[in-house]
Amino acid sequence: MPKFKAGIVGATGYTGSELLRLLLQHPDISIEFVTSESKAGERISSIHPHLLDISDIKLESVRNVSEYSPDVVFLALPHGVSMNFVKEHGLDRFTIIDLSGDFRLGSRSIYEEWYNKKHIASEYMDDAVYGLPELYRDKIRNAKLIANPGCYPTSAIIPLTPLIKYGFINTSGIVIDSKSGVTGAGAKAKPGTHFPDLFGNFSAYGIGSHRHMPEIESVIQGYTGFTTEVLFTPHLLPIDRGILTTTYSTPKKEVSKETVEELFHSVFEKEHFVRVVDKPPMLKHVRGSNYCDVYATYDERTNKIITVSTIDNLMKGAAGQAVQNMNILFGLIESTGLKHIPLNP
Amino acid sequence: MPKFKAGIVGATGYTGSELLRLLLQHPDISIEFVTSESKAGERISSIHPHLLDISDIKLESVRNVSEYSPDVVFLALPHGVSMNFVKEHGLDRFTIIDLSGDFRLGSRSIYEEWYNKKHIASEYMDDAVYGLPELYRDKIRNAKLIANPGCYPTSAIIPLTPLIKYGFINTSGIVIDSKSGVTGAGAKAKPGTHFPDLFGNFSAYGIGSHRHMPEIESVIQGYTGFTTEVLFTPHLLPIDRGILTTTYSTPKKEVSKETVEELFHSVFEKEHFVRVVDKPPMLKHVRGSNYCDVYATYDERTNKIITVSTIDNLMKGAAGQAVQNMNILFGLIESTGLKHIPLNP
Amino acid sequence: MPKFKAGIVGATGYTGSELLRLLLQHPDISIEFVTSESKAGERISSIHPHLLDISDIKLESVRNVSEYSPDVVFLALPHGVSMNFVKEHGLDRFTIIDLSGDFRLGSRSIYEEWYNKKHIASEYMDDAVYGLPELYRDKIRNAKLIANPGCYPTSAIIPLTPLIKYGFINTSGIVIDSKSGVTGAGAKAKPGTHFPDLFGNFSAYGIGSHRHMPEIESVIQGYTGFTTEVLFTPHLLPIDRGILTTTYSTPKKEVSKETVEELFHSVFEKEHFVRVVDKPPMLKHVRGSNYCDVYATYDERTNKIITVSTIDNLMKGAAGQAVQNMNILFGLIESTGLKHIPLNP
Amino acid sequence: MPKFKAGIVGATGYTGSELLRLLLQHPDISIEFVTSESKAGERISSIHPHLLDISDIKLESVRNVSEYSPDVVFLALPHGVSMNFVKEHGLDRFTIIDLSGDFRLGSRSIYEEWYNKKHIASEYMDDAVYGLPELYRDKIRNAKLIANPGCYPTSAIIPLTPLIKYGFINTSGIVIDSKSGVTGAGAKAKPGTHFPDLFGNFSAYGIGSHRHMPEIESVIQGYTGFTTEVLFTPHLLPIDRGILTTTYSTPKKEVSKETVEELFHSVFEKEHFVRVVDKPPMLKHVRGSNYCDVYATYDERTNKIITVSTIDNLMKGAAGQAVQNMNILFGLIESTGLKHIPLNP
Repeated sequence: MPKFKAGIVGATGYTGSELLRLLLQHPDISIEFVTSESKAGERISSIHPHLLDISDIKLESVRNVSEYSPDVVFLALPHGVSMNFVKEHGLDRFTIIDLSGDFRLGSRSIYEEWYNKKHIASEYMDDAVYGLPELYRDKIRNAKLIANPGCYPTSAIIPLTPLIKYGFINTSGIVIDSKSGVTGAGAKAKPGTHFPDLFGNFSAYGIGSHRHMPEIESVIQGYTGFTTEVLFTPHLLPIDRGILTTTYSTPKKEVSKETVEELFHSVFEKEHFVRVVDKPPMLKHVRGSNYCDVYATYDERTNKIITVSTIDNLMKGAAGQAVQNMNILFGLIESTGLKHIPLNP
Repeated sequence: MPKFKAGIVGATGYTGSELLRLLLQHPDISIEFVTSESKAGERISSIHPHLLDISDIKLESVRNVSEYSPDVVFLALPHGVSMNFVKEHGLDRFTIIDLSGDFRLGSRSIYEEWYNKKHIASEYMDDAVYGLPELYRDKIRNAKLIANPGCYPTSAIIPLTPLIKYGFINTSGIVIDSKSGVTGAGAKAKPGTHFPDLFGNFSAYGIGSHRHMPEIESVIQGYTGFTTEVLFTPHLLPIDRGILTTTYSTPKKEVSKETVEELFHSVFEKEHFVRVVDKPPMLKHVRGSNYCDVYATYDERTNKIITVSTIDNLMKGAAGQAVQNMNILFGLIESTGLKHIPLNP
Repeated sequence: MPKFKAGIVGATGYTGSELLRLLLQHPDISIEFVTSESKAGERISSIHPHLLDISDIKLESVRNVSEYSPDVVFLALPHGVSMNFVKEHGLDRFTIIDLSGDFRLGSRSIYEEWYNKKHIASEYMDDAVYGLPELYRDKIRNAKLIANPGCYPTSAIIPLTPLIKYGFINTSGIVIDSKSGVTGAGAKAKPGTHFPDLFGNFSAYGIGSHRHMPEIESVIQGYTGFTTEVLFTPHLLPIDRGILTTTYSTPKKEVSKETVEELFHSVFEKEHFVRVVDKPPMLKHVRGSNYCDVYATYDERTNKIITVSTIDNLMKGAAGQAVQNMNILFGLIESTGLKHIPLNP
Repeated sequence: MPKFKAGIVGATGYTGSELLRLLLQHPDISIEFVTSESKAGERISSIHPHLLDISDIKLESVRNVSEYSPDVVFLALPHGVSMNFVKEHGLDRFTIIDLSGDFRLGSRSIYEEWYNKKHIASEYMDDAVYGLPELYRDKIRNAKLIANPGCYPTSAIIPLTPLIKYGFINTSGIVIDSKSGVTGAGAKAKPGTHFPDLFGNFSAYGIGSHRHMPEIESVIQGYTGFTTEVLFTPHLLPIDRGILTTTYSTPKKEVSKETVEELFHSVFEKEHFVRVVDKPPMLKHVRGSNYCDVYATYDERTNKIITVSTIDNLMKGAAGQAVQNMNILFGLIESTGLKHIPLNP
């Protein structure tokens, strides 16, 4: 019997749909409400036909939310929209897990610089806990506002923090070369996501200017105490789901292939969702699951440490991570309702 | 606590891997053994890396099987190999669910004609129940040998049987135009499944000569009592999973769009895994799930009934159906361990 | 030295871009003008970056067209827009090759029924020659207005006309099951063509209601004299280019595999762009080329004639066919500038 | 009328097939012979069905080659096989353009280390000219043996040489992150190239150990005089054709975005096949063509120079480059027979 009540605000996009996939199967959760302004009144399966016969929840306007008493509310809203909900509802009645970027950056000024938007609820920024359990499990437990990490940052921060925290690498000159499937761009059709233009295609974008760069830097810095500077280059893979991130960094002490591998094994030994692999990982081995597979090695010839990590951007990069945060928040076993085995092949 | 014990014979292929995905999560099943002759002694995750940290079962030789007392054994073996296991072990100790084609056809002579191979265990053919629950739920309940249906036949028999059983269509001249993802061709690399040759490509094959044609005909005939003749044309889709089947038939009585729709709704109303949809279905709306989505309509202008159905060929077309059969066999709720929500997008 | 002058009206879409690819390489053609209303003033390579360093033509408004004296004008415009150009410019100054559907259907009433739009230039309908060279080469030679065929119709009419013209099949009950790449839906991003929703997906659409159905029927009827009725079901393939069409029909006289094959070989023997193949053809074997590969066979068991044909929808299904028509019009060798070898793999 | 005679040794693979596509359309070349040991006696279209009606050349054994007097022979053979041909035929009768890796590395010992194979024709190594026209046009003109560059090296050397030659960057610590389509792995079906395993997948491989790494380093060093050390990480893209390479390096003098861009524009201004683009390039904008699109920028914040380059691996990365070399050799205009406009979309 479900013990906790959840609401989803903004369920017509991909993260909303993935949250539904997870929460509808979660043994301890009942879904109280699911909102959409444009589709209020429709059944969820008319928007997400794959949910036919699985859920007959009706979408309703966010204005109805105050009728309910949820324990947690997920905001699956665009950047710049989530903050309105936080402003209006505050943090007293329920914990908010925000999947947008509105509360991920440490300060209002950084947010406004990178998101090019006024932050209207910056008084809550200090309340926000960055929801990466592998770093902030303890803080998440008592959070009232959880800023669920970006997909790219999740894939980069997990392999880089051990290297930085334990003094393995120089914190400047780090190169992050990421490759993401197209669901990362959202559910809305745009000129840049037209099928024939992306099929069989591949390209880099946002070189040196993507807003996930300051997120990566500020989170690593906040966690490790070391000022960190990364060059982040995202690329668009012609597939639906998945991010693979390759990082390149320079040791600041003597290392070997073995010491690097040992570091990763010891740091992530107890993590349910981080699997340290001994060969470069493949995207499909995490598809549909909440795993982050991580590979780390040292190339002696060029004196570089290389990591390769993979996630499903809609799972560990968004909805799966949000549910993991919720489990921590409610004192549940962290993998509850998240044991989805990767869909391979 | 698991109540039933299962074994998997032949676990290095795609159906074996998909069975593992399902059974490892099934609440009432413990996996007793998993066999492979070529990989005996290795951990399952060295063959299927996506199962790392999920299962550390060791593969063993089928020769060890007699040490165990399973309640059910799944044969995820190639055509022509399953029958050896049946011959050797008989049907007294455990029920066998055979995912190959060895026991799907009604007679030894038809088998030998279409599979071009001597059948060495034809004495068990009469014991075999065709494992399509939507047709043979009652027989499956007491079966000792279940012939799990082929992927194409599953997608064609589900929409065609209501039309034939209730006298809606002529049983000759039925056209079945099917399109399948490449996992249907198995896990072994072959010239015909080389990535660059299939990417962005599409073609028909086996026109009028595919061995799933006699399977479709004999099953429909056995179930409805009407001699049925179909022309079956498979095509190869450049994707991993999924079958979409379009059928064309001619009414033999007066019908309308409405009467056809009503027929499907009434026949499948209580079926957990058949969803009657009101628009042509999409493959990804069943990906990773055990659903068969079915659409049926009537075109007055040309006087044809058209159906479109979709399945995930590794699920409702193979492993999912096998687990559904097992649930029936054990008296479990039919959807136990099979509630995977489709992975969309 | 180029002998003929061409203009392209509407060059920002896929057919416009493909026309440019062909005409820029054509030995006997100079491009006089290329128009776009929304992008007038920009260089063609800013719209089609793959043409960088290949062409520095500037787009201009269609209002400037009267300054030029082209021999032929290609209309690469949406349905319903081409007719405005024809109305305004008439057919006296140059021949028009219209790649839209505006002049493909025989009568104003049929057009208005299927395109759901008033036809404002129906007085020119009788002047229009249906630009399928394999049927109407002689009329194309002297045409003032050429209605370039639709992509689906091209792939269906080529295999069906011999069967009907020579009395091989019944002209009712013909089933056409077509599968098209997504470029057929045009260059504009739409909800239905969003990459993540189509990737790995497949579906049928427009069953019994696609406007290419009356085109197929009226063209076959006009050419063979037999009233013809087809059931046409298009499907959307998750690839960029290519159409594969499978047809099913019933013989009306005694036939054999051999007589069917002979028919196709004799009918298409002299055709440069129709290749009769002895195995079901593959899409990639025509990619980027103007070929239509055709396979025909007879299934004795079910007494059906089956054909499978493939084209590149942007070439033989649009721009390539338009250039083939232009070559005929100008008395050039039909394959001039069209000898592109298929891009395989 | 063709002026030069060419032979192709080993035409059943992808580079052989692509050479045929180019040479069959080349205005100045006649193809004298095409060899295959396994398929000798068969028509080329039975191996490459897309060439049906285009060429009816018969494959013959390489033993027949001495009957002909070609001007140039292309070796489209696997690594380790080409050297046998060179050993047997020497360099007196015709120029050899070898598309394998056998003569790309400067010394026998380096070859044997990286290719793990004895070099049996190392006496010809000094005769070999590295066939990258943008570097060695003058030497190619008089070469008797041309070592056609690897696909990855082509994509990396073109953007890196200007930066190194003109002293813009440190020659150690260079990171090359490459992503290639699957045709780069050859035409033979292998476990690693099975369609369902690669579809929707992505991974890195050969980190720090790929044999194209020493090729890149030795060529840059030979050309610029600077000892160069690169870390090269290849990744496998789930598409058929194309390589995109992203490089990261550190300036060794003061630079700006503008000075970097100017460098590239001035170096490549006269190159027919290198297009300097002002936005990160897309793979499909070079598909089927001989172009290398190059983008270069400077990120002030992290003080890194980033380049992104794209090629079609079968064209500029193999067959197209080989024909470009042949054109130079014969004194033809370099783009003769190579004006294929990219097939986009």
